Amino acid sequence: MRLVLAAGATRTAEIEGISAAGATRELMAHTPAIDAEIVAYGRPITGEHVPVSPTGCPTPAVLTRAVREAVGFDLTVVDAGLDAETGAPTVGVDARPGRDVRDPIAVPDADEILATAREFGRALPDDELLIGETIPGGTTTALGVLRALGEDVGVSSSLAENPTDLKRRVVADALAESGVEAGDLAGDPIEAVRRVGDPVLATVAGLAIGAAAAGTSVTLAGGTQLLAAAALVRHSGITLPLSLATTAFVDEDPNVDLDAAAGAFDLDLTVTDPEFERSNHVAMDRYVAGEAKEGVGAGGALALAAEAETPMRAVRGRIEAVYDRLDVGADASASGGSGPEDSGGADGGA
Amino acid sequence: MRLVLAAGATRTAEIEGISAAGATRELMAHTPAIDAEIVAYGRPITGEHVPVSPTGCPTPAVLTRAVREAVGFDLTVVDAGLDAETGAPTVGVDARPGRDVRDPIAVPDADEILATAREFGRALPDDELLIGETIPGGTTTALGVLRALGEDVGVSSSLAENPTDLKRRVVADALAESGVEAGDLAGDPIEAVRRVGDPVLATVAGLAIGAAAAGTSVTLAGGTQLLAAAALVRHSGITLPLSLATTAFVDEDPNVDLDAAAGAFDLDLTVTDPEFERSNHVAMDRYVAGEAKEGVGAGGALALAAEAETPMRAVRGRIEAVYDRLDVGADASASGGSGPEDSGGADGGA
Repeated sequence: MRLVLAAGATRTAEIEGISAAGATRELMAHTPAIDAEIVAYGRPITGEHVPVSPTGCPTPAVLTRAVREAVGFDLTVVDAGLDAETGAPTVGVDARPGRDVRDPIAVPDADEILATAREFGRALPDDELLIGETIPGGTTTALGVLRALGEDVGVSSSLAENPTDLKRRVVADALAESGVEAGDLAGDPIEAVRRVGDPVLATVAGLAIGAAAAGTSVTLAGGTQLLAAAALVRHSGITLPLSLATTAFVDEDPNVDLDAAAGAFDLDLTVTDPEFERSNHVAMDRYVAGEAKEGVGAGGALALAAEAETPMRAVRGRIEAVYDRLDVGADASASGGSGPEDSGGADGGA
Repeated sequence: MRLVLAAGATRTAEIEGISAAGATRELMAHTPAIDAEIVAYGRPITGEHVPVSPTGCPTPAVLTRAVREAVGFDLTVVDAGLDAETGAPTVGVDARPGRDVRDPIAVPDADEILATAREFGRALPDDELLIGETIPGGTTTALGVLRALGEDVGVSSSLAENPTDLKRRVVADALAESGVEAGDLAGDPIEAVRRVGDPVLATVAGLAIGAAAAGTSVTLAGGTQLLAAAALVRHSGITLPLSLATTAFVDEDPNVDLDAAAGAFDLDLTVTDPEFERSNHVAMDRYVAGEAKEGVGAGGALALAAEAETPMRAVRGRIEAVYDRLDVGADASASGGSGPEDSGGADGGA
């Protein structure tokens, strides 16, 4: 079992109020790079900054790493347009950070990225793949792609209060600037990503298409961004089996009708509840309050743990251990009060 | 436990007769990239070419992968100047392929590569590291560095008949073209790499220095190229503990006095014998005949297997399984008779 983690950036995350994935623009740019390091090594290695929300909710990379330590799985990080260097080993797909979704063209090389990722997905020798993402601002571009494709699916947020009005305004502007009306790009997934998507969506869709075509069992590991990726696959005319594994936090989100979406995109759905309400550890209580919810493949990782019959109690214990190793408290006090700081990798950081 | 594999290139490998690491120059350039894929995924993924010698001796990447499947360890591939794209995830140290060792300057940015690798080695969170290499032509540059440092240590070869005369002539030319006499660069390891080394030696030395300084237990996993890296560390004035783990094939090589070298560089030496004479499988019998010997961290991986009390019989069984999966026969017949083709990753491919 391998998790392929697509890590990248979109300038959309820099829109005021749309993403809280970092105390500063500079820190936010590092979130996907650090998420990758946490899953790869168990802690950040190119710096001390740990992505946490203003209230101390840690990046879901902590959940994914905890399951990796408990159950064991291979990891391949794909540089799907990272804005910062990462100490995690990466495979390239010639992606650069995406532009602001309101630019007429958000991902100029969407076609090439998708094709390169498809070939890589096809080449991977694994029987089963999880595919996850980390990109601040990613739920907004996911919403843009869903609208362009004409899919009426809501998107989640890493914030307890989803800034849905702002996202809708941004997406309306994005469609207008791109000269696209909702549904115009049904059946044209590459153009949808090029106009109003992000490079991670192109990468995830390409990986899924290539791997599924090679007979690999593909599980999209995440929330509404992965639903957008599934929509891209389906709008490519591909009917091969696809699964989606996410957390109970996404399932409980009133902004998303997960079952309807899974039905619409013919996804075999797995929802895993890590029962964080049984803990009052700081690493978990903000999830219970509705923050973060997903990201960095966490839902897929939790499904793996359940499948391996690892008790959720053991997973929670491991999450505490990973979190404590990160020394978030020291980091939070160092940057305390300087501004919002969020999980970023969490289902879009927006 | 993590294997850090430094994979790179030197134009030295293109000297006629010095390296047989590929049927053609183009294939040779791919050997380290494919070695990395074999250890990462269990088989090449960017093409079908499997590095084997003219007699069918497979790359030692097969041994390393077999132990990885049997025992399990993390892998980080460092792009230490690769000449071809690899599908294995890599960390960069801003290295480019090294020039011909007979150029006045073989590795112009040796200083920066070593510094970047040192910081990466320092940042890795592991308690124990194996550090290995794959670079065709690497034993010749290793000999160059050892001579420049004034160390009288012989070097091994992936060929049963070591072309020692040719190597000595090339190194004599290299020193002359660089304006260096044997021993001139004692105590100046960076200048030794810059004049007559390769980017993998700079990377391995940097990784070892950084990791050892951070308190990590460092094992140099390989043969005489790793001895040259150890010499670079010692000529930096660093007296921290270092181990070297290699195969019985290097230990039995009359060109190398391994015990003397380990003593000279204060290395805790482990030699592991995979008892290939107990097999008559094509994946192993050329090793018994004196080919390949080492490379791609194989000696360190075998030591891990021994430490985990995995019987060598089980390791050999797994080597057969990995080899059979590679479908080398199909590849060999496709390229058969077209010229020499060698393990490359094998202790220098030269």
